[in-house]
Amino acid sequence: MALVFHKLVSIEEALRLLEEKVGGIRPPEVIEVPLLEAQGKVLAEDVRAPIDYPPFDRSTVDGYAVRSVDVAGASEVTPVSLKVTGKVSVGSAPVGEVRPGEAYEIATGAMIPRGADAVVMEEHVSRKGNLLTVYRSVAPGENISQAGSDVSAGDVVLRAGTLLTAREIAVLAGLGISRVRVYRPPRVSVFSTGVELTPPGAPLEPGHLYDVDGYVVTASLRELGVDAKFLGILPDNYEVMLNSVAKALEESDVVITTGSTSAGYGDMIYRVFRDLGAEVIVHGLKARPGKPTAIAVKGRKVLFGLPGFPLSAMMNLYTLVTPVVLRIMGLEPTREVVKVRARIPFRFQAGRGFTELIPVQLVQGMEGISAYPLMAGSGSIAGIGLSDGFIVAEESREYFDENEEVEVTLFSRSLRVPELNIIGSNCPGIEVVLRVAGLSRSSRIISVGSMGGWLALRRGDADIAGTHLLDEKTLQYNVHMPKVVGLEGKVVIFRGYARRIGLLVRKGNPKRIRGFEDMLRDDVVIVNRNRGSGTRVLLDLRLRELLGGKRPEDFVKGYTYEVKTHTAVATAIIQGRADVGLSLEAVARMFDLDFIPVGEEIYDFAVRMERLEKPAVRRLLDALASREFAELLPKELPGYRTLPETGKQVYP
Amino acid sequence: MALVFHKLVSIEEALRLLEEKVGGIRPPEVIEVPLLEAQGKVLAEDVRAPIDYPPFDRSTVDGYAVRSVDVAGASEVTPVSLKVTGKVSVGSAPVGEVRPGEAYEIATGAMIPRGADAVVMEEHVSRKGNLLTVYRSVAPGENISQAGSDVSAGDVVLRAGTLLTAREIAVLAGLGISRVRVYRPPRVSVFSTGVELTPPGAPLEPGHLYDVDGYVVTASLRELGVDAKFLGILPDNYEVMLNSVAKALEESDVVITTGSTSAGYGDMIYRVFRDLGAEVIVHGLKARPGKPTAIAVKGRKVLFGLPGFPLSAMMNLYTLVTPVVLRIMGLEPTREVVKVRARIPFRFQAGRGFTELIPVQLVQGMEGISAYPLMAGSGSIAGIGLSDGFIVAEESREYFDENEEVEVTLFSRSLRVPELNIIGSNCPGIEVVLRVAGLSRSSRIISVGSMGGWLALRRGDADIAGTHLLDEKTLQYNVHMPKVVGLEGKVVIFRGYARRIGLLVRKGNPKRIRGFEDMLRDDVVIVNRNRGSGTRVLLDLRLRELLGGKRPEDFVKGYTYEVKTHTAVATAIIQGRADVGLSLEAVARMFDLDFIPVGEEIYDFAVRMERLEKPAVRRLLDALASREFAELLPKELPGYRTLPETGKQVYP
Repeated sequence: MALVFHKLVSIEEALRLLEEKVGGIRPPEVIEVPLLEAQGKVLAEDVRAPIDYPPFDRSTVDGYAVRSVDVAGASEVTPVSLKVTGKVSVGSAPVGEVRPGEAYEIATGAMIPRGADAVVMEEHVSRKGNLLTVYRSVAPGENISQAGSDVSAGDVVLRAGTLLTAREIAVLAGLGISRVRVYRPPRVSVFSTGVELTPPGAPLEPGHLYDVDGYVVTASLRELGVDAKFLGILPDNYEVMLNSVAKALEESDVVITTGSTSAGYGDMIYRVFRDLGAEVIVHGLKARPGKPTAIAVKGRKVLFGLPGFPLSAMMNLYTLVTPVVLRIMGLEPTREVVKVRARIPFRFQAGRGFTELIPVQLVQGMEGISAYPLMAGSGSIAGIGLSDGFIVAEESREYFDENEEVEVTLFSRSLRVPELNIIGSNCPGIEVVLRVAGLSRSSRIISVGSMGGWLALRRGDADIAGTHLLDEKTLQYNVHMPKVVGLEGKVVIFRGYARRIGLLVRKGNPKRIRGFEDMLRDDVVIVNRNRGSGTRVLLDLRLRELLGGKRPEDFVKGYTYEVKTHTAVATAIIQGRADVGLSLEAVARMFDLDFIPVGEEIYDFAVRMERLEKPAVRRLLDALASREFAELLPKELPGYRTLPETGKQVYP
Repeated sequence: MALVFHKLVSIEEALRLLEEKVGGIRPPEVIEVPLLEAQGKVLAEDVRAPIDYPPFDRSTVDGYAVRSVDVAGASEVTPVSLKVTGKVSVGSAPVGEVRPGEAYEIATGAMIPRGADAVVMEEHVSRKGNLLTVYRSVAPGENISQAGSDVSAGDVVLRAGTLLTAREIAVLAGLGISRVRVYRPPRVSVFSTGVELTPPGAPLEPGHLYDVDGYVVTASLRELGVDAKFLGILPDNYEVMLNSVAKALEESDVVITTGSTSAGYGDMIYRVFRDLGAEVIVHGLKARPGKPTAIAVKGRKVLFGLPGFPLSAMMNLYTLVTPVVLRIMGLEPTREVVKVRARIPFRFQAGRGFTELIPVQLVQGMEGISAYPLMAGSGSIAGIGLSDGFIVAEESREYFDENEEVEVTLFSRSLRVPELNIIGSNCPGIEVVLRVAGLSRSSRIISVGSMGGWLALRRGDADIAGTHLLDEKTLQYNVHMPKVVGLEGKVVIFRGYARRIGLLVRKGNPKRIRGFEDMLRDDVVIVNRNRGSGTRVLLDLRLRELLGGKRPEDFVKGYTYEVKTHTAVATAIIQGRADVGLSLEAVARMFDLDFIPVGEEIYDFAVRMERLEKPAVRRLLDALASREFAELLPKELPGYRTLPETGKQVYP
């Protein structure tokens, strides 16, 4: 029986149904733990200070404890004499009492003796034997930190529901509290399902994928402070699946499975949930991704069946599972999930009848943060690594507009802003210059093609755009671009380097390809680059010369087969999906492919004028002009060389 | 021999000296761990993709794998017929080849069979037995996710020095990597020192304090991902200290002690470091707090002696220890310590010859974030709980100006912005209304007195100010204030509640106090409230009536003894530091003190007009007007009652 999603419910509706069904989502139990183990857990009850802090009146200076009335009017010209009759050091109880005309020597932090109501600083007295001469008066209470002045016994110092960080631990320690009543962190068991899955580390059979979901779901939950266990990939066997999930449910507050929930694939998880006596309250979510999602409850325990694509599983984890586990932890989800405001860099379609979750990459621009939608499919793993969070398009929405403000749910608790954003054309040379500049770790490279780099520069998102766009009229590289995008007088272009490009073919050149003209042959399939990339522009230029006005898609096999990076061109040829592609000599060498050179192109760096003073930009430009870079570049990347003008300004 | 700080060095200089002495701070060693254990650790080497992702061409839809040339031109009116000769399901390798005129049934995620170069979606075909009718053409590559299109084999997917979060774990899993080479997290041993220290949980002797430093330093390091162990309080015994630190140094990369470093107290830690063969490179830091700081190195290991006051220890941990341990972790400190920009709400002195670290509390105002300096002394533990981070005043600075922009180093990785900021007078009634509104956990109450609340309202930092200021002329509460602070027409005042105030005296009223006039007696000592509090204003008013023009400090004993909260007034009386104080009936009951009523005062809530629409403000005002609150208030707080106008607007 193929399963039909009878009634799709919204994310909000799903959470409401769940809440209703279990009669409120609450922490399962309270445990008492030693102070340092309470870190990262949530306080289960209000904590009232059992003692004052400080617990006694103490001196805040080194000096002499006195009766303030005794030294009233004391000054350099009218000093007052007192007799030193005692001494209090730190950590000991004072003996006796300070009587009129007397003083006790006292150290910072020591307890004020009876009778004294102020402390005269060491600097304002002179002493000979037991005779003390005081040159300054003190008010009652001066230089004394009064008992309870910081925290008074009985004050509520921490409220139930507080997440205990180092700072709360400090407050509890100071009040002498060594054991703390906290909510037991929720126990969550995670399974992956899918006949195509292989655990990482094992050899991969044809048609199989490594399991990602089990790892990303478990690790994401652990980042929230949840006690999450990954129990492996469930086999394609109903009995085993039922028994494994039943056992996990016994030991956990929440059980999560990924995969196997789509109607097209099978309804085994749905049946497992049902046959365990759990009530399936949601089967099918009105969200994209998220349609094949199942939620079931048994008593106060919750079972989630999440979609199988890793990015889908992760985003649904945040929208559905996180609010539930945070409340089981005793926290308020709205407070714990970190959101930032950002704006959309360009218009794109979204929503249209489904709630849509869209992964984004954040870039600190000149006027706040931009959220670049990641067009990676939900099957992408690179997309998970690149995305900082996601935005939600409501059902009723048709598109996001350019510059529209949105709220981004972060995948981490904090936003790590790169020192340098390099947006534009994909080039391995950037890695070399970053390494010389010592910026490898703190830079973010977003590959959107040369043209995309210019647009990011215009929006102020890119500090630097990497570009290799040929002007067909002048046959010069890049310097025509400021006019094209309306940035005349607003950008500086620095000469980068030359890189040899040519045709990549399989070792031994079995198809005997000699040049672009062979791309028109019937027995030759090409692999193309994405639109907007400089390499694509060059290829289109050459094909146009060969074809006149005719459409290349009609004459060149594989013309519509587009990949995003140079290395992907090489891979397509190695695996036989294509016979030839335009790419870099450096990449041909890396993958041991044959290379037919067709020329050199120039790769430049464009910078907005006002960013020139940014330290990281300065460092990159210095590295570009350095001798070290000139020597390293051809060694690391065959076919690359610096030019006499490398690192120099070529525009304006 | 009393120790003298011969040469104070700056924080930057100290870090430079340290770096120089150990020849660069680097991770101690590389370890290989299973994937999930790598979470939170730092990658020790670049990771290149060992395989393509996806590892094979796969279908992105349910449908039929075809040769695109076979269905060229297919449409609803000119359908094309093919023969179904095979089937590929997920997780299996296709058998045979799609030959001209043929098609294979294929599921989403399944491997594209040889011969096919595109997939026609299920929706665009009809099938009878093995006869397939195709109603739409497909381009080569259509509905196929090409091998390596997401990640190409050989691509650097993660760079050395990357902190591994759930997302990086996902990428590694997808590429089949089950073990990861990471830097071993630094091992840090933490000791407390000080004869006055008692571990939390043990009974406290007179003059003793509970140890805070050991806990706050250990917990703060653990939040960074450091393997930190707290080894307890070192006894006041040179031999034991030497042996304990020697053993810890053997097992750790870094040893931290707190306390015992000040010249006034003793130089034992300094001697211990030296006698262990470590070179003391810093002894005395030109920073406040931080002067009694020692840094020593032995080989590649580092020893820190931090100041003893908890807030001092914590801030010096961030300025000195954190940059070192982060680099031992393999991370770039500038990237990992989270800083936010904020502005200073009022002018105050700072710096003046010393680098000064000032703890601050952050408040989201109308135009960005304000950083309220915490005037708590470095001995404060409440200050640790309340502070979000700290700002640094350089040596050359004299003051911070109102509205000046500063950089705040956060004590946590993320800033938790409260839903509601209530700034102003301290009143236990606020807790009750917050509880009714369900806002207890997500609100922040900053007690700065009624006047401070009005100023915070003017700056836009407070959503709501709690106020009980009596106008001496009209004898009305609060409604005169908008004019006083220049907020006429910009705020709305909502009536709060009445609370009975009076004189708190010890049980049985041993001093037979009947009213304010007894405060003038020679045998009576009072405890006063801080300036700016409404209670203080009322007391000053009454004392002025009694004293005419005379200064109360000359006639009222204890007049200068100021405490910040109502409960601190009670504590002062219980502990015999004072005989009487003006405070709330509710507090008298809480502490079992006698109470002499002197009247009722009105506590109101002032809100800036534009904040009225803020949901949390709305919820609080609704709660204030609710029946539930009217019933709960007098039950929870004796002497409190709502008024007929409670929750209603009284201004303008």
